Amino acid sequence: MKLYAYWRSSASWRARIALAWKQVPYDYVPVNMLKQEQRQETYRSVNAIGQVPTLELDDGRRLAQSLAILEYLEETIPQPPLLPRDPYQRAVTRQLAEIVNSGIQPLQNTGVLEAIVELGTTREAWARRWIGDGLDALMRTAAPHAGQFLVADTVTIADVCLVPQLYNARRFGLDVARWPLLARIEAACNDLDAFQTAHPDRQPDKQ
Amino acid sequence: MKLYAYWRSSASWRARIALAWKQVPYDYVPVNMLKQEQRQETYRSVNAIGQVPTLELDDGRRLAQSLAILEYLEETIPQPPLLPRDPYQRAVTRQLAEIVNSGIQPLQNTGVLEAIVELGTTREAWARRWIGDGLDALMRTAAPHAGQFLVADTVTIADVCLVPQLYNARRFGLDVARWPLLARIEAACNDLDAFQTAHPDRQPDKQ
Repeated sequence: MKLYAYWRSSASWRARIALAWKQVPYDYVPVNMLKQEQRQETYRSVNAIGQVPTLELDDGRRLAQSLAILEYLEETIPQPPLLPRDPYQRAVTRQLAEIVNSGIQPLQNTGVLEAIVELGTTREAWARRWIGDGLDALMRTAAPHAGQFLVADTVTIADVCLVPQLYNARRFGLDVARWPLLARIEAACNDLDAFQTAHPDRQPDKQ
Repeated sequence: MKLYAYWRSSASWRARIALAWKQVPYDYVPVNMLKQEQRQETYRSVNAIGQVPTLELDDGRRLAQSLAILEYLEETIPQPPLLPRDPYQRAVTRQLAEIVNSGIQPLQNTGVLEAIVELGTTREAWARRWIGDGLDALMRTAAPHAGQFLVADTVTIADVCLVPQLYNARRFGLDVARWPLLARIEAACNDLDAFQTAHPDRQPDKQ
């Protein structure tokens, strides 16, 4: 395996700990964030969102997002484990991991702090910037895997995350026609009972 | 089951879709974010980080973080599935979900946008604010589950996320003595080979 990483990136570091824990040998490919290499086209072809780490498998397939990498390593190399066996304990573990992964780290990562410094903007412009960049990356990453839904022809947690995000994109004034693949999949989801039942407008506390 | 949620919250919405998909009946407990109920002590005793959703199981145990809830539902109610069967496809699915969950949504959620509006601050103060709040929530959430590590006495992905985050806390000038439980677990992790090998200072691209 090959790990595209930056020594100080905490998401890269998580992947390194897991690889070492599972005793997986790998080649280390440095991506120099001080030189903005993560945003250059060379690396963007490896990782659409321009973030480290990316794990490249021996067959050349690639994976990004550190938690997805951790779960993949856990499933393919179960010993020694990184998740408890009991379902509730597993859920608590993931909850704690997500407090860091989605609750803390994204708000203090390098790109976001740079944007804060540049800030002379409105809430809406700020939100549109990150939603726009994120959906660009999502569409580019999903394209080779998509079928009727984001991953082949079955609903997955990825679709579950997509639908609420596109609603937010519209709230902040983005035209989702910019992401035709995502808009088409959203429409397919919205045909399904589970997605209709769960829509904000159908909830008892709607205002 | 019981779901603490807000109609428009996208993380709540994800949980609703999954519950509907798995055909799980549940009681809906609205948490009014316009009235800041999610930050009040009543709800903080349900969810330390003051975010929706929280899933309460029939035995009263609680779970938060929407992705952890989705994975829990997938493991305990496998049919109909929300993850593909092939390990690589599973990883791609999680990668796409995390682009939304940690890459987009945290940067445009209500609390963050409010903070942006108030912004008259430095990068460091901004980072300290979110790291501080997040680690407070992490310690409070982990406390009932912690042993030698965050969840009982075995290393998990939660510990893998903890160690790099505490390093960042120090970089931004926070004193980690504020979180004695987390500091103790960090020390236990740092005794292990996998954590030592993976440390930034041991990487070939260290500057």
